[in-house]
Amino acid sequence: MLRKLTPLKINHVRLQDSFWSPRVQLLHQAILPYQWQALNDEIDGVEKSGCIDNFKIAAGELEGSYHGFVFQDSDLYKWLEAVGYSLQTEPDPEWEKRADEVIDLIGRAQQPDGYINTYYTVKEPGKRWTNLIHNHELYCAGHFIEGAVAYYKATGKRKVLDIACRFADYIASVFGDGEGQLKGYDGHEEIELALVKLYHATGDQQYLDLSRFFIDERGQDPSFFLEECERRGEKRRKEDLEYHQAHLPVRSQMDAVGHAVRAMYLYAGMADVAAETEDHTLWEACQTLWKSVTEKRMYITGGVGSSSHGESFTIDYDLPNDYAYTETCAAIGLVFWAHRMLQIEPNSIYADVMERALYNGVLSGMAEDGKSYFYVNPLEVWPEACHHRHDKNHVKTVRQGWFGCACCPPNIARLLASLNQYLYSYYDQEIYVHLYISSEAEAELSGGRVRITQVSSLPWDEDVKLTVSVPEPAKFTLALRIPAWCQGAQLTINGETVTWESVNGYAKINRRWSDGDQLEWRLPLTVERLYANPNVRVNAGKVALQRGPLVYCLEEVDNGPTLTDLCLPVNEELTVQVEADLLGGVAVISGNGVRSNPSGWEHALYRPAPLDSVSASIKAIPYYAWCNREPGEMLVWIREC
Amino acid sequence: MLRKLTPLKINHVRLQDSFWSPRVQLLHQAILPYQWQALNDEIDGVEKSGCIDNFKIAAGELEGSYHGFVFQDSDLYKWLEAVGYSLQTEPDPEWEKRADEVIDLIGRAQQPDGYINTYYTVKEPGKRWTNLIHNHELYCAGHFIEGAVAYYKATGKRKVLDIACRFADYIASVFGDGEGQLKGYDGHEEIELALVKLYHATGDQQYLDLSRFFIDERGQDPSFFLEECERRGEKRRKEDLEYHQAHLPVRSQMDAVGHAVRAMYLYAGMADVAAETEDHTLWEACQTLWKSVTEKRMYITGGVGSSSHGESFTIDYDLPNDYAYTETCAAIGLVFWAHRMLQIEPNSIYADVMERALYNGVLSGMAEDGKSYFYVNPLEVWPEACHHRHDKNHVKTVRQGWFGCACCPPNIARLLASLNQYLYSYYDQEIYVHLYISSEAEAELSGGRVRITQVSSLPWDEDVKLTVSVPEPAKFTLALRIPAWCQGAQLTINGETVTWESVNGYAKINRRWSDGDQLEWRLPLTVERLYANPNVRVNAGKVALQRGPLVYCLEEVDNGPTLTDLCLPVNEELTVQVEADLLGGVAVISGNGVRSNPSGWEHALYRPAPLDSVSASIKAIPYYAWCNREPGEMLVWIREC
Repeated sequence: MLRKLTPLKINHVRLQDSFWSPRVQLLHQAILPYQWQALNDEIDGVEKSGCIDNFKIAAGELEGSYHGFVFQDSDLYKWLEAVGYSLQTEPDPEWEKRADEVIDLIGRAQQPDGYINTYYTVKEPGKRWTNLIHNHELYCAGHFIEGAVAYYKATGKRKVLDIACRFADYIASVFGDGEGQLKGYDGHEEIELALVKLYHATGDQQYLDLSRFFIDERGQDPSFFLEECERRGEKRRKEDLEYHQAHLPVRSQMDAVGHAVRAMYLYAGMADVAAETEDHTLWEACQTLWKSVTEKRMYITGGVGSSSHGESFTIDYDLPNDYAYTETCAAIGLVFWAHRMLQIEPNSIYADVMERALYNGVLSGMAEDGKSYFYVNPLEVWPEACHHRHDKNHVKTVRQGWFGCACCPPNIARLLASLNQYLYSYYDQEIYVHLYISSEAEAELSGGRVRITQVSSLPWDEDVKLTVSVPEPAKFTLALRIPAWCQGAQLTINGETVTWESVNGYAKINRRWSDGDQLEWRLPLTVERLYANPNVRVNAGKVALQRGPLVYCLEEVDNGPTLTDLCLPVNEELTVQVEADLLGGVAVISGNGVRSNPSGWEHALYRPAPLDSVSASIKAIPYYAWCNREPGEMLVWIREC
Repeated sequence: MLRKLTPLKINHVRLQDSFWSPRVQLLHQAILPYQWQALNDEIDGVEKSGCIDNFKIAAGELEGSYHGFVFQDSDLYKWLEAVGYSLQTEPDPEWEKRADEVIDLIGRAQQPDGYINTYYTVKEPGKRWTNLIHNHELYCAGHFIEGAVAYYKATGKRKVLDIACRFADYIASVFGDGEGQLKGYDGHEEIELALVKLYHATGDQQYLDLSRFFIDERGQDPSFFLEECERRGEKRRKEDLEYHQAHLPVRSQMDAVGHAVRAMYLYAGMADVAAETEDHTLWEACQTLWKSVTEKRMYITGGVGSSSHGESFTIDYDLPNDYAYTETCAAIGLVFWAHRMLQIEPNSIYADVMERALYNGVLSGMAEDGKSYFYVNPLEVWPEACHHRHDKNHVKTVRQGWFGCACCPPNIARLLASLNQYLYSYYDQEIYVHLYISSEAEAELSGGRVRITQVSSLPWDEDVKLTVSVPEPAKFTLALRIPAWCQGAQLTINGETVTWESVNGYAKINRRWSDGDQLEWRLPLTVERLYANPNVRVNAGKVALQRGPLVYCLEEVDNGPTLTDLCLPVNEELTVQVEADLLGGVAVISGNGVRSNPSGWEHALYRPAPLDSVSASIKAIPYYAWCNREPGEMLVWIREC
């Protein structure tokens, strides 16, 4: 079997974490209700969504014209998916009722042949499948399928799954290499991974085959997209297809290119199909692209996509901090992909990246109160320059109301709602702990049922306690991830120090466990000074601070303006203190640095005198928490001297 | 008198400089002949100019349609201006004949009322003066006037001046605050300074009055441009007028904003009008804007305009090295402006900036052979990123054939052809030496005629010899600029050490001079380490090397790739050697630096190990000379450690 591990299901893991649980709660308190109102155009002063109305018009129940982007339907589908995950862990009759009504509406908007897409049904009837490169038709289908599967798993109600299958069956009739079929694929990948979920939910092989078809066809010569564009009279060149990862067959792609979110969704789908079909060449392609991203094209925050133009990857080591795009959705996509890679190859390199993206590049996208969002997550912000430089106008210097564009906020919602599934995996007689987040997990190993209770003090403190519950003593392996950020992890079981075998970054403890066995897993949290590969030109001479999974940053509110002027001596000892009243309670890193003496510079732009330094205290906070106080400058990579 | 000094005329100064004269010779050998052919569409494989044909069509001598930009006429005018300067120093019957024919043609294209503009005459007859904000009508007029004055001064032939006066008289009838006149001004400043030249050439006060009118009206409320746009149904906001320096009356403008070339031409015109009309409020506005530019918005190369969007200024201290625009024409405009400021206030701060722009930001625009040009002159180039990042696509990584766009090359041509006038000024019984360039100069002081012979070894060596020739002993003051880059200048006269009074950065030697008096003016050339104001965020921790007037840079061909990785120890001694075979003979700065040990970084993007350094030799060449060998990376601001 290519895939080694199976993630524990969402409803087999219960989060009880002081760091994450309140954020998941924001889902119920803020995100889902607000989004529901937005989809229904019930919020005054907010840009019209038109989403629900589009479905009503498509169902023939409302007069009107289509409103919004071509992918407007997907907003509803992501909401449905988040509700589905939420109901898997916490039943809620009211939300279930709303979802049922929405599903009924979707069913009524479904066309006799199974097709669902309100844009084409209402606005361009007869034009289906004529603009796959741009119009997100299969992308929307994919999000519907993901939503349908999540809701079906939560409630066991087949209606939504049946609607999805009818739609997928119809898609399978349209696409393929048979006579009269389209040998095409979507401009925005998403359906590939969704079809694998539908295959799992139904056991119907044709969905897996269709996903594989889309992946195998992508980038083949002659190009489906170029021919499609030619049919519509649109001029495109082969190079333009990099944006869609359609410039080469996926197995020939050596570098991560193009739109970063699309790339992440494609790579996640490739990993799924590789695992399901035991396709080693596809798995090798995944590994090649993984190296491209994580060894050459990823920010230290787990953000990906260094150019606003095309929200895209550029070239190796081109990772400007202030011009970064690093869309929240792309970091989320990296979590999806890393999680899939980890199940195929149980190696902490995947879990490390998954954790890095989750705690930094994803979490920075949301304000502490869940009410405003960053789409773009740069690592250095000088607000005045962003306001005045046209080439930085993609960088918002404060988070925006989440309703402005409907892409990242519901993506964070569905990730938070399904966070449970990223913590543990199992295989035969092994149970893996990937993330140290307080929780209760139940696994059905080949030797019987095991419950693990995890009490983690991360990310602020270094103790993780695990309690094993078994109906009767059982032999199995507990595999605890040794994070890359940790040196000198220590383990005791029932108070006794234990050694372990380290396999691919996991501490494997194979023994006969008794009910109530207690593990104390100490993961020393030190302030790490991280350096970038010298080819990352912008980070030369600079250091990033990390503690545990958290990358830190400087904010103007703590350090004054002109953060680039601050310099951290190479031997300066840094201290850590948890400030309970700060940003919901965070560990702060402090130290003494230097900055330029401003005197003499009042009227000088350049001068020969060597810079005169004065001491300056430096205070760093977790990157994810920036911009929750006064707006101002922010900086991750600090000069070292 | 507000203006203190008068520049020595072009034909009163004769260049004999081993650094500059070969570059001026390129004018005759390459630039003027090539441009003449280009204007006549006689070069195969080059984009059509259509310029001469446009004039023939306007004169009714050719059938056809208008070709090119709205400002296409100005290409011919700048050529005429360069020819005019050239003929002032070096008569050439062939070029004079060509110019006479061109002048005849321009005369035949002139309309009965005096108007000249082939775009409006051929393409939009009846639409004159309806789109001043965009269509460069007065800008073209200004360049014609500059060309006409230059040619008239060279030959004494009045014909071109008469054509120009008829045109200017017509413009004066159209614009003004009288009944039925337009209270307008041009979107691209140029005519302001040109009209002052016409005033000087003719003594006719109305041209000065018109220039002053344009300057005084600019940015008044209600806005002429906003009203003009409204008449044409074009939407513009008040903020958009910053691009044209028309957002506020010029005396209320505190910051240099908008399109940098336009700004420089306006400020030069403001200085002219301030001096001619003894307008102290306008002079104060010039000083305010001078401080804005030189204390907060100028690159160390004398380049200005830090954003490609609008080729414009942005905000204080926003001077990114790799995203710079720094158009060659803008640095040329800064030379124009600085030269005018210097005549009003004899202070070396103006000459220092003039020299900085001339030797660096201007000269970098032209290849050693005069055949290719940079429009954009960044201070840091990573070619691969420029080729792949959309937000850097304004940065060309090699100089382009000068015919591609016709704006910067002829601008360099006219500056080189008139370089003579920037070296010396005089006033009553004082003669000023601003630039140390080998030459012979003749000045008519109130006490009689003086000839100065300057033999300068700059920029490579530090000796300047000046010989005074007077028909009989005469008392006057010789004022020698003490460059800001020089510490410990030494002077001997006839072998004896002399002290001097330093006034505003000039060494003033007031004495009775005898024929043959010899001055040896030694200007110690050291390698200066220059630092940027800490508010220039991108230059924190970095140093720029300068020697004499020349800013230095690192090139990949000498230092290997990833120049940002190189670090120059703060106490490292730097040595200088003239390499006769390199780039036409340049002084090279060498030293020992460090760079990262690449081992261990093959697959790592971030790692906790502190960077391991290896020694690396550093070789810097003058910035202006970069990209005359193999293309590659370039870097001005070097990390210091």
